[in-house]
Amino acid sequence: MQAETRHIYSFGDGRADGRTAMKDLLGSKGANLAEMASLGIPIPAGFTITTEVSRFFTAQKGRFPSGLNEQLDAALGQVEKIMGGRFGDSKAPLLLSVRSGAPVSMPGMMDTVLNIGLNDQTVEGLIRQSGDERFALDSHRRFLQMYSHVVMGLDGDVLEQKLEAYKRANGFELDVELGAKDWRQVIEGFRSAIMAELGRAVPEDPHEQLWEAIRAVFSSWNTRRAVHYRRLHHISNELGTAVNVMAMVFGNMGEHSASGVAFTRNPASGEREPYGEYLVNAQGEDVVAGIRTPSPINRAYELPQDGVLSMEERMPQAYRELVEVFHKLESHYREMQDIEFTVQKQKMWILQTRTGKRTGRAAIKIALDMLDEKLISEREAILRVDPEHHITELLHPAIDPNLTRPEPLGRGLAASPGAAVGEVVLSPDEAARRGDAGERVILVRQATSADDVHGLYAAQGVLTQTGGLTSHAAVVARSIGKPCVSGASEVHIEADGSGFHFGDAFIKAGEVITIDGTQGMVYRGALDLVEAELSGEFERFMALADSHRTMGVRANADTPLDANRARAFGAQGVGLCRTEHMFFATDERLEAMRAVIMAESTEERERALSTLLPLQRADFADIFRCMGSLPVTVRLLDPPLHEFLPAGRAAYEEMARALGKSVRYVKQRAANLRETNPMLGFRGCRVGIIIPEIYDMQVRAIVEAALQVQAEGLSPHVEIMIPLVIDQSELRSLRASTQASIDGLLEAAKATLKVAIGTMIELPRAALLAGEIAREADFFSFGTNDLTQATFGFSRDDAGRFLPDYLERGLLAFDPFVTIDRDGVGELLALGLTRGKAVRPDLVVGICGEHGGDPRSIDFCHELGFDYVSCSAYRVPVARLAAAQCALRKEPGDDRGVGGLE
Amino acid sequence: MQAETRHIYSFGDGRADGRTAMKDLLGSKGANLAEMASLGIPIPAGFTITTEVSRFFTAQKGRFPSGLNEQLDAALGQVEKIMGGRFGDSKAPLLLSVRSGAPVSMPGMMDTVLNIGLNDQTVEGLIRQSGDERFALDSHRRFLQMYSHVVMGLDGDVLEQKLEAYKRANGFELDVELGAKDWRQVIEGFRSAIMAELGRAVPEDPHEQLWEAIRAVFSSWNTRRAVHYRRLHHISNELGTAVNVMAMVFGNMGEHSASGVAFTRNPASGEREPYGEYLVNAQGEDVVAGIRTPSPINRAYELPQDGVLSMEERMPQAYRELVEVFHKLESHYREMQDIEFTVQKQKMWILQTRTGKRTGRAAIKIALDMLDEKLISEREAILRVDPEHHITELLHPAIDPNLTRPEPLGRGLAASPGAAVGEVVLSPDEAARRGDAGERVILVRQATSADDVHGLYAAQGVLTQTGGLTSHAAVVARSIGKPCVSGASEVHIEADGSGFHFGDAFIKAGEVITIDGTQGMVYRGALDLVEAELSGEFERFMALADSHRTMGVRANADTPLDANRARAFGAQGVGLCRTEHMFFATDERLEAMRAVIMAESTEERERALSTLLPLQRADFADIFRCMGSLPVTVRLLDPPLHEFLPAGRAAYEEMARALGKSVRYVKQRAANLRETNPMLGFRGCRVGIIIPEIYDMQVRAIVEAALQVQAEGLSPHVEIMIPLVIDQSELRSLRASTQASIDGLLEAAKATLKVAIGTMIELPRAALLAGEIAREADFFSFGTNDLTQATFGFSRDDAGRFLPDYLERGLLAFDPFVTIDRDGVGELLALGLTRGKAVRPDLVVGICGEHGGDPRSIDFCHELGFDYVSCSAYRVPVARLAAAQCALRKEPGDDRGVGGLE
Repeated sequence: MQAETRHIYSFGDGRADGRTAMKDLLGSKGANLAEMASLGIPIPAGFTITTEVSRFFTAQKGRFPSGLNEQLDAALGQVEKIMGGRFGDSKAPLLLSVRSGAPVSMPGMMDTVLNIGLNDQTVEGLIRQSGDERFALDSHRRFLQMYSHVVMGLDGDVLEQKLEAYKRANGFELDVELGAKDWRQVIEGFRSAIMAELGRAVPEDPHEQLWEAIRAVFSSWNTRRAVHYRRLHHISNELGTAVNVMAMVFGNMGEHSASGVAFTRNPASGEREPYGEYLVNAQGEDVVAGIRTPSPINRAYELPQDGVLSMEERMPQAYRELVEVFHKLESHYREMQDIEFTVQKQKMWILQTRTGKRTGRAAIKIALDMLDEKLISEREAILRVDPEHHITELLHPAIDPNLTRPEPLGRGLAASPGAAVGEVVLSPDEAARRGDAGERVILVRQATSADDVHGLYAAQGVLTQTGGLTSHAAVVARSIGKPCVSGASEVHIEADGSGFHFGDAFIKAGEVITIDGTQGMVYRGALDLVEAELSGEFERFMALADSHRTMGVRANADTPLDANRARAFGAQGVGLCRTEHMFFATDERLEAMRAVIMAESTEERERALSTLLPLQRADFADIFRCMGSLPVTVRLLDPPLHEFLPAGRAAYEEMARALGKSVRYVKQRAANLRETNPMLGFRGCRVGIIIPEIYDMQVRAIVEAALQVQAEGLSPHVEIMIPLVIDQSELRSLRASTQASIDGLLEAAKATLKVAIGTMIELPRAALLAGEIAREADFFSFGTNDLTQATFGFSRDDAGRFLPDYLERGLLAFDPFVTIDRDGVGELLALGLTRGKAVRPDLVVGICGEHGGDPRSIDFCHELGFDYVSCSAYRVPVARLAAAQCALRKEPGDDRGVGGLE
Repeated sequence: MQAETRHIYSFGDGRADGRTAMKDLLGSKGANLAEMASLGIPIPAGFTITTEVSRFFTAQKGRFPSGLNEQLDAALGQVEKIMGGRFGDSKAPLLLSVRSGAPVSMPGMMDTVLNIGLNDQTVEGLIRQSGDERFALDSHRRFLQMYSHVVMGLDGDVLEQKLEAYKRANGFELDVELGAKDWRQVIEGFRSAIMAELGRAVPEDPHEQLWEAIRAVFSSWNTRRAVHYRRLHHISNELGTAVNVMAMVFGNMGEHSASGVAFTRNPASGEREPYGEYLVNAQGEDVVAGIRTPSPINRAYELPQDGVLSMEERMPQAYRELVEVFHKLESHYREMQDIEFTVQKQKMWILQTRTGKRTGRAAIKIALDMLDEKLISEREAILRVDPEHHITELLHPAIDPNLTRPEPLGRGLAASPGAAVGEVVLSPDEAARRGDAGERVILVRQATSADDVHGLYAAQGVLTQTGGLTSHAAVVARSIGKPCVSGASEVHIEADGSGFHFGDAFIKAGEVITIDGTQGMVYRGALDLVEAELSGEFERFMALADSHRTMGVRANADTPLDANRARAFGAQGVGLCRTEHMFFATDERLEAMRAVIMAESTEERERALSTLLPLQRADFADIFRCMGSLPVTVRLLDPPLHEFLPAGRAAYEEMARALGKSVRYVKQRAANLRETNPMLGFRGCRVGIIIPEIYDMQVRAIVEAALQVQAEGLSPHVEIMIPLVIDQSELRSLRASTQASIDGLLEAAKATLKVAIGTMIELPRAALLAGEIAREADFFSFGTNDLTQATFGFSRDDAGRFLPDYLERGLLAFDPFVTIDRDGVGELLALGLTRGKAVRPDLVVGICGEHGGDPRSIDFCHELGFDYVSCSAYRVPVARLAAAQCALRKEPGDDRGVGGLE
């Protein structure tokens, strides 16, 4: 006979069949309970039914594997032996809890049933045993409520209303006012209601209760909401859940009982002081429910009111035991723990332990402290901090985490992190005027364009109706570190400028709102914010990370201001300087650019360009100065020309006046430039080919700026990047003219300067033909935004109409504008890189799309062998850490850390 | 010592060093001269300097290889011996012509110098020899003009003006009025003018003349215009040109001399009768120049005026010799020949032979006749007809080829072949009204959209200012066989509807114009047209081609009318039925579609769709009926919804009224649908996912129509195609819902019906993930229009701003919207096909973009192993022939035919 499969793993009394490493089989909760048992930590005895049973149960449509029954009986017998009661016994009844426990945390998704084993007989045993009739009856009615709801599917409101009706009829207000007699009547009422609603009763047989509860918990793995949650969080349906059956202990057995939750260190600040709350004579759920205000477990924290005692003072023995458990857990798990405990008649029971969630500040402090305590290695310390959540949080103001948030006005996409408060302003000009005057405003727009940047710069944050995570507003906001909520489709702005609708609400212009770009929420009124602050510990931590990093991190910086910020955040150069952004900086520049576009002859165009030359030169010089000898990759003009033109009849008349041209001509020319699909139109190097004067001026500005800075004693590292090429012949032509300009300028100046010339790979054809293109390129920078657009046929500006729905339905696992699509875009990246490096092994290859700041994408770039990533300044620390973690993960070693956070 | 390289190949007197097969080395002209010499055809003796010398000359910047000098002297000696004169001799001077002759024809691009060897001494010899002083002096002045222009670079106008001045001063009008004395004075005048302009004289030394002329011809290979011509015609610069040096013979030595050009068969009709023109006492250039009207060579053709004799009558002996030459050449070359001849004092000389150009009608007749004459094989007959030019010409009316065309108003892109005459109409509504009333109108628009198709259908043709070869106007025009000139950038339409500017000209609305969509030309007034006519020979030829074809040819047909036409043209099914085109067919349908779009609830939308259901069903049924058991691939809705909405405030007010909605709502909804880059927006299966009711209705209409037709005894072969997928999960979801609809309908009808479900591969990601996608697809159809757009990042509608320039500069060899880009798009096609077939070997794979009708692209599809191509009905015969030729070219055998046409 084959050895029977083990379906059940027992724990309790200092022994356990399982251990932490068996998380996949026992779930996180079960594995940690087993581990705690082995460590001698006082946990109620119990057992875990494996995730294999869950998979069997799902595949076999609700059947259990053979042998489970016998194994459960045996395990239950062991629990009875350890805990000293008997399940279903009317004298010394043992009660059980049945809880789900998947390998991955799914908060609030899965079911729990408590107090299993109670019936008309056993409740009397519980009364005798506890000496507390009211407690026992309250437990019984709670059991009926929970069981009928979770196991039998009764609408939870039915019994809740029944209870409310009883209280109303008898003049009670709070549950605590009800005595034993009341609860007996309520229980009767519950029973008849259940029978009336469902046509059957809650079973009295404890074993039937137990099996049905187990069945219910396994079934809860496949509820719609659980499946949906897993889809959104990229959790496999194949994992399944374990079920933990454990002896009940009670924190509500009088004044020497209590329940609490605690962290081994402060999860907000990271301080080593234990942190937690407890409630005397209460069950665990009461601590969370917030009906009574819990007290801190020690005096390191402020008490909620005078006269209330901390656990340290009121239950010194239990507190000492708790602190001992803390030490044991931390030295064992080498990680900050979040635990639940119950004191039953002075005896301490630990119900659960898991890795504790923490703020960014705490994550860094705990990692460094544990490193200093020699609890963890440098590698582990670096892997403990989540680049996305922890680092981003540190760099931006946020809504006070201690605040109970009001109902939001509505939501949109979390397009640029951080929170901001300000008065609603609907026009960029007004935002600029008031923002520059020091007022705090939030710009609310249908969408933004390059023409609106002055408003974006001056506002505290921006809210848009349309546009995705890489819409104009989102990209600009991230690059300047302002919060942005984009694609809030329920926003409708009144054409008369009086305000905007958000769903059913109307918000007047000038009203104050709060936006949370980290979560994509919008609130009426001013919520309290906490400011960003970068500590010395942050610097130390990042330096530690950098020492392990192998891939470069550059910044996308379009202005000297950006460049300075990028340098401060540790960028190793500028990977993308979008020169066109300089043209929007002032009215003077924009007008000159418009003159370039509206020129009727080459001479006229060159005259207009000569106005821009000194301005671009000065900007480039400042950026080169800021970056010293670090590389600065300057991209020549990229967007379609009509982006520089104004909107509206009046603006055209004004522009015509300013340029000394007829309105008719100006409109005609603008109409000629208008495109059906500008993203696929006359832009990038296509403009450079057809109207060479613009690139000529830009190259001149770059070279003259570099020479100027060189004369000051610096060694600028200049890279000129030609955008949007489709193949070698296009690049060959532009490289030749660029090189000719450079040579001419250097010869005239009798100077030498090394200028690399490379290209963006941002079209599928360029990626496919990268081998040929590499013959003309000193470097490649993959423009993954455009590449994603073309590969998917998704416009960044328009995908908001279907992309959220695709993500919601699981048709796409990730937003491809946020995380590089490995399957499609990824293959083009791999092809482009491989083909390019095959032809030119010294080819420097980076990416400069928005993906450059996304940890998952950085991981992929690292895998492929990219030389660097470039991202907006505010993402540089995120990218630095993510890249360090990639390098560390490739090293052999323990893989806990970020992965260990639930 | 190494054997010396042979630089020169002699011919004459029944012998030759070269032969036809040496075209690459001797050029076409030289190789054919050699071949004729070997055949004993009377040609003036001469020799050919090889293309190798040309390549050497180019690479060595004007140097000649060693040994050339000696070889030339030897060859020249041989010519003297055969022709019986001496080069440079003042008694019996031999004169030479120097002509270029590349392996590929470049008409008008390369230089020629005649009468080399004339100087003050030799001209006297010529006078004596010919007994005609005037003739000899006229030859001399022609030599001076030609030499000073071609060799020395003098502006041709200088001497022409000199001559004009002499004639004015002496009261002459025509050249023939000048006597010998006059020519002597003119020659003196020429000499002083050349000296004054260039500071040097035309050399007197005949050898210097010869060498300089040879140098000039070799140099002419690298002139700007020649390089440009080769770039446009995809001819390699590496080919080089040969130079032919040949003894001069004279058709202008009196009444027994003549010059002419002739075809061995009629190049217009294909009749076996020789066809040609001659002029007595004239040089070859006089026949072409049109100063005197030439006469036909035989009485099969009408004489220009009474009393003029044909050559057959006037020079019966020479004519007989000519016909003999014809027979010799045809039986040797097995191809219709185009020859030049000169009769010098009754002696017949043949100066050149080459494959004759012909009309489509002639091409087919000649191929079939030669097949019947057993001159050529079936394979050769099929390869002799050019699918692009010959077939297209047969299917469309054209401007009478015998007409001397006036100066055009301007040009645009040759977007849809054929010619049309009509009054200018600027609005689609007017075009529809007047066209439907039987008037002939040409629609002139900035561009067209789906909203304008009623106007396109009713007009004779269309002219647009913007848009490329695959713009909306071009695609629709081709699909309905109407001529279209698109992208005529010099067109500017007056906003008041009074007319349009074309460059400097203004054409009033209502004025008559002629457009030639085959050449992209526009003329003022009505030019004579010749109608298309398909003969029985056409049918026989196509059947012959089909018998060799291995790849299927389907048609893109959107309506029953299209389907009937496609079937008539031999389509083997419908490869693409764009269902949305049905929605534009009538106002009723369009209004129903607008109601679908403007619906405020699912119910309202379904109500509106129920109006469309019977209309689509009826259309589908008609198409199924027309196609019998041939496959019909129906594509579900593809374009962005806003394409169905009207433009302009008034139209919105009207639509709101018609739908019973507020103008505010209608505008708001339309604004919501407006996109920045609609091509990359909410369209294709994205609409199918988010608004499933539309696809549901379409699937129902398809299935119900098929069942209806099935009940009539036919076996419809239905394929449902889902557009614009990005991966497997998207297709899986839509396939499942489509299959569920089908199953439900079949069950309800208690019927069976096989419906294939497949997808378009039209995005780079779909091509890359084709392996996965194939798991959900019964067939693939590559949408190469969209795939090209996304791969290049070129919008079809906007690329007109730079694409013509790219082609002009040689940055792109072909318009990628016309001919599949093998390098980029081609790799995606190959990947998609290979990956798809690897997963599902029985996957049916076709293409349905505009490329499906382009012979070069069909060739590529054949190479890759596509099962079929699908193209607009009018291209079906082109595709059938092109596909047959692909199959034949893969067979072993002689590769002449299309390639042999120059």
